[in-house]
This record gives sequence, structure tokens and C-alpha cells, in this order.
Amino acid sequence: MTDLLRGRASSAGPPPAALADALRRAVTLARRGPARDPNPRVGCVLLDDRGRTVGEGFHAGAGSPHAEVVALAGAGTAARGCTAVVTLEPCAHTGRTGPCVEALHRAGVAAVRYAVPDPTPSAGGGAAALAAAGVDVARLPDDEAEELVADWGATSRRGRPHVTWKIASTLDGRVAAADGSSRWITSPEARAAAHALRSRVDAVVVGTGTALTDDPALTARGPRGRLALDQPLRVVVGARDLPADARLHGPGGQVVHLRTHDPAAVLADLRERGAHRVLLEGGPTLAGAFWRAGLVDELLVHLAPALLGAGGAPAVPDLGIPDIEGAARLELVSLDRLGPDLQLRLRPLPARPTDLEV
Amino acid sequence: MTDLLRGRASSAGPPPAALADALRRAVTLARRGPARDPNPRVGCVLLDDRGRTVGEGFHAGAGSPHAEVVALAGAGTAARGCTAVVTLEPCAHTGRTGPCVEALHRAGVAAVRYAVPDPTPSAGGGAAALAAAGVDVARLPDDEAEELVADWGATSRRGRPHVTWKIASTLDGRVAAADGSSRWITSPEARAAAHALRSRVDAVVVGTGTALTDDPALTARGPRGRLALDQPLRVVVGARDLPADARLHGPGGQVVHLRTHDPAAVLADLRERGAHRVLLEGGPTLAGAFWRAGLVDELLVHLAPALLGAGGAPAVPDLGIPDIEGAARLELVSLDRLGPDLQLRLRPLPARPTDLEV
Repeated sequence: MTDLLRGRASSAGPPPAALADALRRAVTLARRGPARDPNPRVGCVLLDDRGRTVGEGFHAGAGSPHAEVVALAGAGTAARGCTAVVTLEPCAHTGRTGPCVEALHRAGVAAVRYAVPDPTPSAGGGAAALAAAGVDVARLPDDEAEELVADWGATSRRGRPHVTWKIASTLDGRVAAADGSSRWITSPEARAAAHALRSRVDAVVVGTGTALTDDPALTARGPRGRLALDQPLRVVVGARDLPADARLHGPGGQVVHLRTHDPAAVLADLRERGAHRVLLEGGPTLAGAFWRAGLVDELLVHLAPALLGAGGAPAVPDLGIPDIEGAARLELVSLDRLGPDLQLRLRPLPARPTDLEV
Repeated sequence: MTDLLRGRASSAGPPPAALADALRRAVTLARRGPARDPNPRVGCVLLDDRGRTVGEGFHAGAGSPHAEVVALAGAGTAARGCTAVVTLEPCAHTGRTGPCVEALHRAGVAAVRYAVPDPTPSAGGGAAALAAAGVDVARLPDDEAEELVADWGATSRRGRPHVTWKIASTLDGRVAAADGSSRWITSPEARAAAHALRSRVDAVVVGTGTALTDDPALTARGPRGRLALDQPLRVVVGARDLPADARLHGPGGQVVHLRTHDPAAVLADLRERGAHRVLLEGGPTLAGAFWRAGLVDELLVHLAPALLGAGGAPAVPDLGIPDIEGAARLELVSLDRLGPDLQLRLRPLPARPTDLEV
């Protein structure tokens, strides 16, 4: 009763404090969904006019019902006239499940409060569609809800995962000596940072050449060699088979062998698997193909204060750059020291126009 | 009279304040000598017991008489019983001129005060020789006098000039694109720093290959292209002739063409010419020869945030390093940003032992 007298405007609906609590709960629910998924993590709470929860749900990943649908199913007829609090704008498209906009409207939901607008061309526009159907729709901006879908949103806008090309080289751009030996060019500090990076990405990608030559485990490990909790997908690109006893087949993330040479196909496949952040670790041929296809968003260079000379293997392959005007220019985003080594984080700059139309 | 009553101890000689003034004057005189010279800059003032100057001189460069000899010649018989104040310990050896120790003793100088000990094995020991001959010898330490001979002292200890290898390359260690084009890899800020560096060294060294291909002027220029006051020797190493219209023959420092491929011979020649600081600017072949001969003291890398790919020309040539154990390790001494580029100053570390004797 006090709620009804205090703070409530003339329009029906749950009190503002109840809406805020419901949004916190929706965020918590959303986190139960998988971070590595083609779909965003979403949570939904249904409130009646007194602010009591009548249903809740979250999205458990691609192929599962959306959070709104789960919540509506739990509420049954109690959904009629209630307010849906959702972390993401309800979708307006029909994917593997029907559009949530339709489900909400059909269930008689009176109002929708959502935290983050859906940036995708195919699924966006849900708020407008609901409003057109007579539902009271408004946005409740929320930082935590934004963060939940940041990677997914970036992948949606970009149409593919974010790609980091990591290079560990000498000052003169070499990754191995004349005989192919390469352990260890960089310091223990740089290698620790590389392992931490692996546990922050969704997939680590190498070519079969590197997989066969270096036999890497591609795991994220801690200082004493223990496997980190978060392990990236281990992705090998290329036609050749790997031996059964490859270290890649040891404990660690799931192993994916993509028998293609098309970087775009690799990224499309990894997006399907729910990867938002992809790390290219080598070798130079594979990374060069991504670079030439314009599919590198970030270059991470671990530079060791050492020289190997032109007899050593180059970190960057032939990029088909004929003259200095064609040099690939980057912007230095950050610079750190990792023990004796340097870590440079760079972003490719758009190519300079070479042919000016007059 | 007051001088004699105040401050003077029982022993004869000029008052301390007069000695200090004489040392300042000797430093001023020394600066008139050439900084680029195989010999150190030295100044000398002769004082009588009242602290009055009876002679002074400085060394005008290799082949000229030493500062002490000039001062003694000016003083004539007034040198007898006087005190010589010298910026550097008088030499004990016979070079193109006789040893100063002998000249001082023969002139009847009673006392010698010097600021900096002579570090060279051949010329050092002058103070001890004078003391043995009954001259009252003592050191008057002085920072300005030390600084005057710092480069010469380092060259003497090292037996050759200090060598800096400068590289301006892309992140992937390239100095030119596939077609050989290379202007400009680094930023205006980095190029300004390179010009400032040229005016701080005594000689800039390139191979005939670079001289013929790039036709560099090898001058130190200011922001508006004006020649700096201090111009280094412009040294071209190799057998091939340069065309008469090479930019090297334009205004700037003296041009020296050394028709040798032996880095040690180049440095010996440049030391003879009075160079204490030498800058290797290219090309990679020449600099690589210095590196392999262990004749590089410092690496200065201007790193542009750009890629040219393995089709481009390498900044560092084949160094004959067979495996990763043989990688040349360096220590990062300083790190600066020059506009968008990085400047790394590094010092080579001693090679790791590869064969441990048991």
C-alpha cells in the first residue's frame, strides 16, 4: 500500500526500485549463459504491478529459447499485464526460435524495460515493433548489461570475431634462427603475458605448418605450468593431418581442425562456434593471409632486445607490398615493458589512397 | 703581503685561490683546442709564488706542441721555481713532441697541479715520474676538466672510437620495400632526432652501396633544412667510386673515402683523424661487418609503426647466427617516443657461453 502511495506515478506498473532490482537480477541471470556463443547473454524478469516477480529466465546459448520466452513460460497466465525487464532489447526476428517481440505481445505483457539496444540489423527494431503494438516500452540504461553483450555486439557490428595477430620477434623482425630454432626468443615475463592473453580470447589459431613444426600445446597456463580455468578453442587451419600424439591433443581447450585456406571462412566458422575474440599465433603464412584479407583488427608485438639477422625466419611474410607508399601503417595504441621485452599494441590504419580520382 | 700572512702554509707556492683561478683559466684555454682530434684538449697556466701568471698555453691538436710546452716557452726563465696548473696529468711519453714531464723538470718547475689523471698506458705515469724527479705533484679534481677529455679518455681506454649503429626500420625489421624505395619510413620527428644525432658525432659512416643507391647528403640539418653548425666527417667505405655529382660532395662535413672493407681499419683511420664518436648509418652490409667484428657499442633503433613484409629489404643482414642460442642479446638502455615512432637505445650484451669447460 505504501508503495502505491509513495513514488508511483498515475500510470500502472511496478515501483522504480523494483524495476532496478529486477534489472540487477536479470543481469545475474544473464551471466549464467555461455560467454562463448554466437548469441548474446540475456536475462529477463517479469514483474507484476506490485513489483513481485512472476517469471524469470536467461538465454542458455544458440538453439535454446530466448530469455523472454523462458520467463513467459514460467509465468504462464500471470504474464498478462506485467512488465518485462530485459538486459537486451527483445529481438524482432525469427531465428531458430520465434521473435521475442511476438511472444511478449501474445502473452499480454503491458510494458517492457530493456537496458541495451540491439545493434544488429536483422534482430534490432524490437522496441519500435512493441511500441507499434501498443506495449509501453522504455530503455533503462545499465553499464553491467552493456558489458555483458559488448563482445557479442562488436562481433555483430563487425560481422565476424575480433582478430588479434600476435608476433613474438627479435628487434630485427625474426621469429626463428637459420636452423628453425625459436625457443625462447622472448622473456618469461612476455610468455606469461601470452598465456594470460590466451585465456582471455575464445580461440587461438595456427596453421598446420606451425602445428607440425613447433608442436605447440596452445593452452593457457599459469606460472607453474598449471592449466588456466579458461581455455581457448585450439584451431588448426590447413589441409594436412596432425599426428595423433601432437601436443594439441593433450589437455586444454577443444581442438578444431579447419581444412580451408580462406581466412573469412575460418572466422565465419569460429563465429558459429561462439568465438568473439580470436588470436592468431602463427605461422607467418596464415597470419599474412588474414592481414592481406583485411581481417586483422589488432597487432600485438612482443619485441625481444635481440638480433638474429637476415638468416633467420621473418615474423611477417611477404605482404605483396611493392613500394614504400604501400607500407602498411599502424597506430601505436599502447606500449608496455614485459621484463626485458617490449609489448606494442597497434591498430591498422586505413590504407593511403594510391589512385586519386580526378 | 696580506696573501702571505693569510691562508698560506709554511710551504712555498701560490695561494689556493690563485690555483683555483688558474685551473678555471686552464680549462678555458683547453677549450680552444679541437674537440675532434686524436689528442686530448689540455690547458696549462704557470704561476709564480705570488700567484701571478708567468705563462700559459693550450694544445692545438695532434702535431702541435703540448699545452705545458707552449706555457713554458712563453714564460722563459720565469718558469723556474713556478707552479704549473694543468687540466690533464702531464704526459710521460715521447710522441711527435717530447714528454712534458721532462720539459717541466728541465725548466725548473717546482710544483705541478693537475685535474685529470691520464688513463692511457703509454702516456700515463707522468705524476709519478715528476714526483720521482723531486717535483711537488698533486691532483686538483675538477668536473669541467674531466668533461673536456671524456670522449678522448673513452677512446683511449677502448683503443678506438665509440660506435653507434643506427637503424630506421619498420616493426618487421625492413628498411625498404620490394622495389628498394625507402623514403620515408620514419616520421619527421624521428628524422629530426637523426639530424641532431649527426651533429653530436664526429663521423657518419656508410658503405659505397648506400652512397650509390640512396645518394645521401649525410649532413646535419635543422628543421628548415639549414646546415647545423657542427657537421660530422662524411665517411664512405668501399672500393667503388662515387659520381662527381653525388650529394655527398655538396656542402657539409669533410668527405673521406676509405677503400677498405675492414671495420677495424676504418676505426683506426677515423681515430687518427680525431673521431671519438662514429655513427654507422648503413647499409646493412657495412653495419653487419662492424657487428660481427664486435665493433658496435650501441644500437639506436628508430622503429616505425608500419609493416613492409618479407618482400622488403632487411635492416639487419645475415649475422651468421646458426641457432637461437647464438642470438645476439642486447640490453635496452632507454626508450623514447619520437612522434609516432619509437626510439630504442640498446647495448650489446656479452655472448652467452656456448661451450662450458668442465
